[in-house]
Amino acid sequence: MSSTFGNKIRISIFGQSHGEGLGVVIDGLPAGKALDLPQIEAFLDRRAPGRGGAASSARRESDRPRILSGLFEGKTCGAPLCAVFENEDARPGDYEKTRDLPRPGHADYPAFVKYRGANDYRGGGHFSARLTLPLCFAGAVCLQFLSEKGVSVGAHLLSAGAVSDRSFDPLMRDESELLLPQKRRIPVLDEEKAEAFEALFEKTAAAGDSVGGVIECCVLGLPVGLGEPMFDGLENRISSAVFAVPAVKGIEFGAGFEAAKRFGSEINDPYGFKDGKIITKTNRSGGILGGLSTGMPLLFRAAIKPTSSIALAQETVNLKTNEAQTLEIKGRHDVCIAPRAVPCIEAAAAIAIADLML
Amino acid sequence: MSSTFGNKIRISIFGQSHGEGLGVVIDGLPAGKALDLPQIEAFLDRRAPGRGGAASSARRESDRPRILSGLFEGKTCGAPLCAVFENEDARPGDYEKTRDLPRPGHADYPAFVKYRGANDYRGGGHFSARLTLPLCFAGAVCLQFLSEKGVSVGAHLLSAGAVSDRSFDPLMRDESELLLPQKRRIPVLDEEKAEAFEALFEKTAAAGDSVGGVIECCVLGLPVGLGEPMFDGLENRISSAVFAVPAVKGIEFGAGFEAAKRFGSEINDPYGFKDGKIITKTNRSGGILGGLSTGMPLLFRAAIKPTSSIALAQETVNLKTNEAQTLEIKGRHDVCIAPRAVPCIEAAAAIAIADLML
Amino acid sequence: MSSTFGNKIRISIFGQSHGEGLGVVIDGLPAGKALDLPQIEAFLDRRAPGRGGAASSARRESDRPRILSGLFEGKTCGAPLCAVFENEDARPGDYEKTRDLPRPGHADYPAFVKYRGANDYRGGGHFSARLTLPLCFAGAVCLQFLSEKGVSVGAHLLSAGAVSDRSFDPLMRDESELLLPQKRRIPVLDEEKAEAFEALFEKTAAAGDSVGGVIECCVLGLPVGLGEPMFDGLENRISSAVFAVPAVKGIEFGAGFEAAKRFGSEINDPYGFKDGKIITKTNRSGGILGGLSTGMPLLFRAAIKPTSSIALAQETVNLKTNEAQTLEIKGRHDVCIAPRAVPCIEAAAAIAIADLML
Amino acid sequence: MSSTFGNKIRISIFGQSHGEGLGVVIDGLPAGKALDLPQIEAFLDRRAPGRGGAASSARRESDRPRILSGLFEGKTCGAPLCAVFENEDARPGDYEKTRDLPRPGHADYPAFVKYRGANDYRGGGHFSARLTLPLCFAGAVCLQFLSEKGVSVGAHLLSAGAVSDRSFDPLMRDESELLLPQKRRIPVLDEEKAEAFEALFEKTAAAGDSVGGVIECCVLGLPVGLGEPMFDGLENRISSAVFAVPAVKGIEFGAGFEAAKRFGSEINDPYGFKDGKIITKTNRSGGILGGLSTGMPLLFRAAIKPTSSIALAQETVNLKTNEAQTLEIKGRHDVCIAPRAVPCIEAAAAIAIADLML
Repeated sequence: MSSTFGNKIRISIFGQSHGEGLGVVIDGLPAGKALDLPQIEAFLDRRAPGRGGAASSARRESDRPRILSGLFEGKTCGAPLCAVFENEDARPGDYEKTRDLPRPGHADYPAFVKYRGANDYRGGGHFSARLTLPLCFAGAVCLQFLSEKGVSVGAHLLSAGAVSDRSFDPLMRDESELLLPQKRRIPVLDEEKAEAFEALFEKTAAAGDSVGGVIECCVLGLPVGLGEPMFDGLENRISSAVFAVPAVKGIEFGAGFEAAKRFGSEINDPYGFKDGKIITKTNRSGGILGGLSTGMPLLFRAAIKPTSSIALAQETVNLKTNEAQTLEIKGRHDVCIAPRAVPCIEAAAAIAIADLML
Repeated sequence: MSSTFGNKIRISIFGQSHGEGLGVVIDGLPAGKALDLPQIEAFLDRRAPGRGGAASSARRESDRPRILSGLFEGKTCGAPLCAVFENEDARPGDYEKTRDLPRPGHADYPAFVKYRGANDYRGGGHFSARLTLPLCFAGAVCLQFLSEKGVSVGAHLLSAGAVSDRSFDPLMRDESELLLPQKRRIPVLDEEKAEAFEALFEKTAAAGDSVGGVIECCVLGLPVGLGEPMFDGLENRISSAVFAVPAVKGIEFGAGFEAAKRFGSEINDPYGFKDGKIITKTNRSGGILGGLSTGMPLLFRAAIKPTSSIALAQETVNLKTNEAQTLEIKGRHDVCIAPRAVPCIEAAAAIAIADLML
Repeated sequence: MSSTFGNKIRISIFGQSHGEGLGVVIDGLPAGKALDLPQIEAFLDRRAPGRGGAASSARRESDRPRILSGLFEGKTCGAPLCAVFENEDARPGDYEKTRDLPRPGHADYPAFVKYRGANDYRGGGHFSARLTLPLCFAGAVCLQFLSEKGVSVGAHLLSAGAVSDRSFDPLMRDESELLLPQKRRIPVLDEEKAEAFEALFEKTAAAGDSVGGVIECCVLGLPVGLGEPMFDGLENRISSAVFAVPAVKGIEFGAGFEAAKRFGSEINDPYGFKDGKIITKTNRSGGILGGLSTGMPLLFRAAIKPTSSIALAQETVNLKTNEAQTLEIKGRHDVCIAPRAVPCIEAAAAIAIADLML
Repeated sequence: MSSTFGNKIRISIFGQSHGEGLGVVIDGLPAGKALDLPQIEAFLDRRAPGRGGAASSARRESDRPRILSGLFEGKTCGAPLCAVFENEDARPGDYEKTRDLPRPGHADYPAFVKYRGANDYRGGGHFSARLTLPLCFAGAVCLQFLSEKGVSVGAHLLSAGAVSDRSFDPLMRDESELLLPQKRRIPVLDEEKAEAFEALFEKTAAAGDSVGGVIECCVLGLPVGLGEPMFDGLENRISSAVFAVPAVKGIEFGAGFEAAKRFGSEINDPYGFKDGKIITKTNRSGGILGGLSTGMPLLFRAAIKPTSSIALAQETVNLKTNEAQTLEIKGRHDVCIAPRAVPCIEAAAAIAIADLML
């Protein structure tokens, strides 16, 4: 495993889905900053089980961090910040029966081979989406530091299955639209679409199936020139963090894959002025050129595959007996992980940017 | 800049498009391996200007590496391997007139701000696609080491504009199809499509425009369980390397963005047996689950935006006079960078995998 | 702060002397190894307050690790291992009165400046020797992995003030002498010297003073050729880890500073054979040539300065009033930190070597 | 090998003693700084063969850097800086006869085992002290950046064999004494001692032997609080860089090993004021407390073992025939490497500090 991220700020994540506890150490934070814990907890609540309407798992965890170090008199003190979470509603027994049956779509089989059977198979162990809890904690902390520098991050559920929200305005100039989705039960821009998403999730759940989605994320307020190409440019670093969120299978910046279908005259962003400052008049680059921020909104989209745990019968193999077998997964699973992944993607982006910026 | 990549193998790339020379240091290679230089040069030739038919720039460079260190009696000797290339056909004067005019789509403007005007603006300096030459050298070296472990890497031009090649077979079992595109002037699988690509490139060139494309890449022969999640999983590391190739704006693994539109029952790959070994019967995961290789072909696609340098007039601003201005780019540019980017994407993948594997 | 160490194995240490708790995350350990917790606790006991005879502080902590992650069914499972310790006998009030008075020899003053007054000043915060507790935990874990590869590490108190133990035999061939000091109250080779050390500590304590010491450490069983020069050779990596132990002010390998006074003919180790294997007939190199292990015992010495906290009156300045002031330190302090630092040095060496070897 | 150093600035060194060429890539330097090349060359001249009086080798190299990248119009441009040196006076044939005979004191034997015989044995290959040439280049570049921040670095030959120079004044307040040794043929503070050193070197050379030495180094002008403990404190980072200089076998900061013999009341530095600023009245800490700079002169000493290549007959083994054999080393070797190592130690210190500071 390599659950450590960052150069200036080093984040080390630990824990398993049904183990004793999980958490994160954040090393290298600037000292003297008062952490707003209620704000951090509000952030964590956005990924909590139970959010995302019909899409969400029934596992219930309070998910309140216990901060062991790094704070002194309420402020960061220069020492590494460690936050620990207990697993309160773990039900490791749920996984006993299917121990030898790798679940399609999960890491079970390659993890079994890699760790020669010693991996904690219960709920995916360290591969579980539950590990996004400490990731979100780290992201929420980074967001507070970024906020001081005028940087804010927001994301929304752009699509799931065939249902779509509208996109962020790539020329947006303030946070009004950015933070809108956070206030909603389903994190969308266009409130009227929430119902269509809910209907999709309910229908999918009823079918014992799951569904994928796309998350769009925007970072506002970046200075011009952030990024360290060739290998630590904004795209390299953000993708490197975002792929730590389980189920992400693709990422694109600005026009992304659409740009591959177009002509240069359609994709190049012409330069101009606005309020005396240099801007691009369009923003198909997603605010990144040559790995560097242009000062325009940074925009990317992440593709989230359907939740791998589904109730429908699936073909698998028994790792002990080496026989083909049919698997039916019980347990508490999200129909669509994308709504709860929205803050996780924000957190990943925040961590990548804080590491370049602080 | 941070043009250094890798943990076990450390690659450090240097040079500017129209500077003295460029090259790469590769530290951490196993000792005692005879390097096949003609094979490396053949690999470099695939990205050389002049390849890619009508798509390609007219700049002519011999692009032969001079190896300064790391080889002894023809074999790697444990010491860092350094290869240097001279810039022979540099024409820095081409860029003099437009020094103060950032070219839309290029890194010029954010680089100017970041380096406070001290950046080498000529042909993009260190941001130039010419820097993929040492990247390809490093990739070609890594490929030789990977080849000893039974791993091979191949890519092709999947699409450009509205023209498409067929896709790799995600269940392919040998190299026969993998290496096919390398033998062709336009690196495609389906030879009959070459003509349609050529026609697109010619028409686009005639219009003074450029066009984007998608490259599909496949890695065969990986052991099960390669990757170090959460942050050094296969997707994190490959994307981190691939975004070092200029013009890449998106990456997706397996079903990628398509997975976001589908149900779990359509995307999960059922397990089964083939020749006594565990396989997945489909391969929508692209050979990666939880950041780990499954043993199936690893498949990803990279979106390449249209070449930013186009002959058509574009709006820009003068960084000295702070006035709006029209820019017409002369010089020697690829109509579509994607064909020549094919070996670059292979190189990036090879580097990422070698760093996890050697 | 940068309390993260390692490339293959990544160790992240957190905590403050009088904070909530402290601990360590160890990422990258091989999976499937049963941890011997009693052995780890026995190792921790060697650094516990109360050891080292008269030299030791009166602070009483049980120092039992709570393992939050990384173990499954008693074995390492591939996921990061996190161990947490509670601070049970913290007395932060002891430090209130002297908050504005930097203690000579401690990090108080530069830490105050660096963190602009936000640092946790109580007992040195993250700079405290208490942070060697998680370091020792990490070292004890690494020792178990090294032990499987035939590598063992031992250290002893070579000297304190003017009192000296005898040195390790630089040609030692088995563990008999290596592990001797661990069984003693004062970790010395020559049992008869224990009394002289005790007498020194008692006299020093009575004088309200403290005293320094030298620790000699030996690593047995290394394969030939371990180390990655120029910058990750054995000396670079071991010193990099050893200077994380507070109060270390010097390190020397083999003949060390003595070598600087001698001729080449006295210092070069001649080669020969023993039992059919190539050996050096002497071992003034300390088992390291060119940063690589020679296969002979690896030997180094670390200089430990006297405990900075002494009862005697000292001159300091008031950081608030900017006035000169006299400081008298109350509290519970080791007269000589060196005896308790013996396992810390072993731990640091074990971590450095495990990171190169596993 | 791992010849890469640094986090903010990344230095990658390549080359072998008798190979094609050698050099260094420095990534992450601030842009827009005019490099003073004559000053860099003057620095390199201080380590050139022929310096150090009778102590020095007869190999003659012009050692002029060719800068391939990173400069534009004479200034750093943000891109990695690469400097290459040719090997002009290489005589690889000198080493042919003794190919199978590992030289006592050199890395030959462990390198042979590590690289399974593929290592470049000629003159030690990448292990050669010749590799300090690119190290010195990198150091000289860093020194120019440090100089802008008011930081300067100087070193001198403190002792060799039984001959000693006087020490730096640990409370020195300006550069007058710091830069004195650089102007002398033998880099000493006390000019009258030069003769005694010369006599020692001549006598030692006549005896076919070599001799070791101690280098003392001082860094002036550091801000208070530089360093990132626990693992990237000043001592960790400086030692990590200094042990890359071949033949270094020990390092101590401030009172160093002497501190281990003393009482706290003798070693703690009392605080006071000078010109309104907080100072320590003594400086036994060597300007470092808790891994952080105190603002006082940073002082350390490095022990250099005698040159391993001596003319006297030595015992070795034949790696091919597995027989004991006598070795007589011909060739051109420094009697005492310490005088020429003086700028190397300065360079190593400069690199470590620049990496923490820039």
